[in-house]
Amino acid sequence: MTSEAGLRRGRPGYDQETVLRIAVDAFNQHGYEATSMGVLAENLGVSKSAIYHHVASKEELLELALEQALGGLEAVLSAPEQVPASLGSAASSTQSGSSVSSVSSAEQHQNSPEQRLEQVLRGTIAVLVDKLPYVTLLLRLRGNTPMERTALARRREFDREVAALVAAAQQNGSLRKDIDPRTAERLLFGTINSIVEWYRPGGSLTAEKLADDVIGMVFNGLRN
Amino acid sequence: MTSEAGLRRGRPGYDQETVLRIAVDAFNQHGYEATSMGVLAENLGVSKSAIYHHVASKEELLELALEQALGGLEAVLSAPEQVPASLGSAASSTQSGSSVSSVSSAEQHQNSPEQRLEQVLRGTIAVLVDKLPYVTLLLRLRGNTPMERTALARRREFDREVAALVAAAQQNGSLRKDIDPRTAERLLFGTINSIVEWYRPGGSLTAEKLADDVIGMVFNGLRN
Repeated sequence: MTSEAGLRRGRPGYDQETVLRIAVDAFNQHGYEATSMGVLAENLGVSKSAIYHHVASKEELLELALEQALGGLEAVLSAPEQVPASLGSAASSTQSGSSVSSVSSAEQHQNSPEQRLEQVLRGTIAVLVDKLPYVTLLLRLRGNTPMERTALARRREFDREVAALVAAAQQNGSLRKDIDPRTAERLLFGTINSIVEWYRPGGSLTAEKLADDVIGMVFNGLRN
Repeated sequence: MTSEAGLRRGRPGYDQETVLRIAVDAFNQHGYEATSMGVLAENLGVSKSAIYHHVASKEELLELALEQALGGLEAVLSAPEQVPASLGSAASSTQSGSSVSSVSSAEQHQNSPEQRLEQVLRGTIAVLVDKLPYVTLLLRLRGNTPMERTALARRREFDREVAALVAAAQQNGSLRKDIDPRTAERLLFGTINSIVEWYRPGGSLTAEKLADDVIGMVFNGLRN
């Protein structure tokens, strides 16, 4: 990051998206509170006023970043079938016999709660990989300000809807009932969210295989 | 660790253990970097010099706290059978009379790699619940100082040994081979470590049931 900023030093010309991306990297590396607008300006190789040309405050950068993550997650819940092609289909049929393929929206609504749950989890992993720094920031949020608490409330609503899907899949007999839906939902997202801590796109583990691995473990278990 | 004598040497009011516990709560709440010795003194209602009576520096508090977490985890790996009774289960009971020495190779245990893995995971959950604030602190560590990086290296060694157990259990056919052992280990700890984010001892979900839920999901899956 430093060298890139160095190469570009003196060039005006960052758009808001680039400012946001570099800011989020700095927040994730040093912590949001510990990162001043002065440090951000240094990383970008521009003056502080050049950043204020794009955003009113450091908090606005955080808010824009969180919107990237939350907007992506909420889109998954309202239309889980719209998982990026690279992460969809083939593997969902692995051990379950339930094939989740690209079909029309109308048909999707007829999917079982278990199928919807799998779609939502695959979609969540896709968003996580696609928006890795933004989701990382969201997951590290402590709720120190009203804006942060609003973001966390949106995240909790997402979690509640997934817990409801788990409950529905338990009630119709497709998922085991001995684990409380809220506990299951928390363990599911514990598994999925932890991906931000170690997964780096572009390595030998593709996002598609990663999604297959997660779905395989949480639905069918590691046991042979 | 500091000696018993050291623990009791404190001025009226607080011993080192209490100072440590309150410091760790503050680190977890506000972040280690953001928490000054002055703030800690305020939280304790004592002067800064009263804290320096117990520890030489803020970094020593962090080091003592990390030792609580890492020491607990390493003990699990060297003797996974010694999971607190409250967290054991019939499924993880060891073969009779195996006296435990400090070893890491599977051949010195009569248990299968899969059984050892289950014991280690149950032991990890027990440590996590028992040392919740300390493990939370460890998991949030960024490696900003040599001491922090040493702690993270110990943690990675723990992870490596668990990944080796997964690999051994795959090789003998008890665990599925389509998931890379390192990925499986990361997903396992993703699931387990996330517990610090939401689990609070003393609620309706006991530590024993929590361990059963985690083991049930990761080994057998949520599917009925």
